Amino acid sequence: MKKFINAVDNVLAESLDGFASAHADLVMLGAERKFVRRRELNPKKVALVSGGGSGHEPLHAGFVGYGMLDAACPGQVFTSPTPDQIVEAAQAVAGDAGVLFIVKNYAGDRMNFEMAAEIAEGRTATIVTDDDVAVEKSTYSIGRRGVAGTLIVEKIVGAAAEKGADLASCVALGERVNAQTRSMGVALTSCTVPAAGTPTFALGEDEMEMGVGIHGEPGRRRVKLAAADAIAAEMTTAIAEDLGARAGAEALLLVNGFGGTPTIELYLMYNAARRMLESRGLRIARSLVGSYATSLDMAGCSLTVSLLDAETAALWDAPVRTAALRW
Amino acid sequence: MKKFINAVDNVLAESLDGFASAHADLVMLGAERKFVRRRELNPKKVALVSGGGSGHEPLHAGFVGYGMLDAACPGQVFTSPTPDQIVEAAQAVAGDAGVLFIVKNYAGDRMNFEMAAEIAEGRTATIVTDDDVAVEKSTYSIGRRGVAGTLIVEKIVGAAAEKGADLASCVALGERVNAQTRSMGVALTSCTVPAAGTPTFALGEDEMEMGVGIHGEPGRRRVKLAAADAIAAEMTTAIAEDLGARAGAEALLLVNGFGGTPTIELYLMYNAARRMLESRGLRIARSLVGSYATSLDMAGCSLTVSLLDAETAALWDAPVRTAALRW
Repeated sequence: MKKFINAVDNVLAESLDGFASAHADLVMLGAERKFVRRRELNPKKVALVSGGGSGHEPLHAGFVGYGMLDAACPGQVFTSPTPDQIVEAAQAVAGDAGVLFIVKNYAGDRMNFEMAAEIAEGRTATIVTDDDVAVEKSTYSIGRRGVAGTLIVEKIVGAAAEKGADLASCVALGERVNAQTRSMGVALTSCTVPAAGTPTFALGEDEMEMGVGIHGEPGRRRVKLAAADAIAAEMTTAIAEDLGARAGAEALLLVNGFGGTPTIELYLMYNAARRMLESRGLRIARSLVGSYATSLDMAGCSLTVSLLDAETAALWDAPVRTAALRW
Repeated sequence: MKKFINAVDNVLAESLDGFASAHADLVMLGAERKFVRRRELNPKKVALVSGGGSGHEPLHAGFVGYGMLDAACPGQVFTSPTPDQIVEAAQAVAGDAGVLFIVKNYAGDRMNFEMAAEIAEGRTATIVTDDDVAVEKSTYSIGRRGVAGTLIVEKIVGAAAEKGADLASCVALGERVNAQTRSMGVALTSCTVPAAGTPTFALGEDEMEMGVGIHGEPGRRRVKLAAADAIAAEMTTAIAEDLGARAGAEALLLVNGFGGTPTIELYLMYNAARRMLESRGLRIARSLVGSYATSLDMAGCSLTVSLLDAETAALWDAPVRTAALRW
């Protein structure tokens, strides 16, 4: 295992300490590193709290800040945050307008956020994201997995909350964005969980895992490594057919790296995917290319397409100041 | 070779097309993809032009935009841009205040930028960056290599140019920033150049290359893989001793990923490096953590420390709108 670590048990703590000190102008850590929260809170707005297993950085702590999340709860690597983490985060950032939990659709995350919602005082609501079209059921989920599309929900709902949308409106908006968002991923290599020390799954030198999950869960099929265009064609077809968008619809295209794939390749995949989506009549109105929802050191990427309307496009464009997204 | 590519000869063209279409609000491509330039030019300011071999994305095209570069010339992978690329870029963005070339210290880059400066009409000046303390002479350079510190020069001088600094002032400022900036890198794996198809160098499963260059050039020594703290200690010691900073000096700390290293590890290295630099009396006043000067898919990172004064800190903080840096 070739990683920058000191001890496998300290990876998360040391990385969080680095994150919090590098971005001390934006965020601070809760006690015992249970959550990352905004340094400056606005008690009048709906507070957005997300979280999940670590190893997907910058998801979610990198999206804490003005215009996006109020707090994020980092679980251990690929492990759900505990209910007490979530309760403490909610209590730390809750104001008068309630707390909205944004939860990726994994059994552990859903269970722990549900328990937290029962314990937490004050009004809470939950959005569950499930944008991954690859499989209907997976190692850790019943129903589709929530993957990179989650950050689009966080950005758009975060902007609405900042503008004063109430809790019910935030829920409706988040569910609308999630329903308009589809993703699919592919792995060229496995990730290696520090505590395990060996790759999560074995892939031959000429193989890839089409439809992989962000924890290295199996996808649709193990196939021979293909050209970028062939990979993009399979992924954009799966996404576009599931989305069923009308010709001329405006969309956001996110090409997301899984941690081990460099920028030069992500832009090449963006070029392929954009061309194919445009040939289907979609209009790519917004773009994001980078490693935003990672799977430790996995080489691979996901494509996400999210349909936009005038309201959601304006909310996407609204100012954001977080460690990982800023405009 | 596991990469998202269609054909090794088209990697750069397809990636540049993707980059230009993803960021069409900020940049446009020159004819035959010879350069990436700002969409909106300001003819009254000094025009900043950089460039170098590709494979280091987002360096340099990702730094084209308001507050930073006016144009960047991408050579083939790990190959200098040609003089005619540089001349055409300079002609496309030159205004009344002259053109400043920012060149990393590699023999090929220096030669081609020099030839371009001789051919180009109008006033030009050049800053050469050489921040890498690892070795005094390397495969492609006489004297120290220019690495991730280059983006700090580009950011600070870019902000000054935006505020109306003249060509001589930009040169003096850039040379001052370069003189206050030191970097050192380490590789856990080799990169693989697409046209070669195999790793540039061989590293054992338990080895790392301390002081590696951003093209996979040899560093100081091949050693056994060590803990993150031991790696950070060697790098911060080399940097701090070379920099010779007084206690209490303010510094920018950049932890830069080489392309195959995920964010969770970069923040862990940031945490280690910051602690060590602070124990030497440096005050880490600004931070940047991410993969900004990469070496294709190499796993590894570099540390850069740049001393700041009130002027350079304010210029670092000044607004910037590029694909890779924005605030």
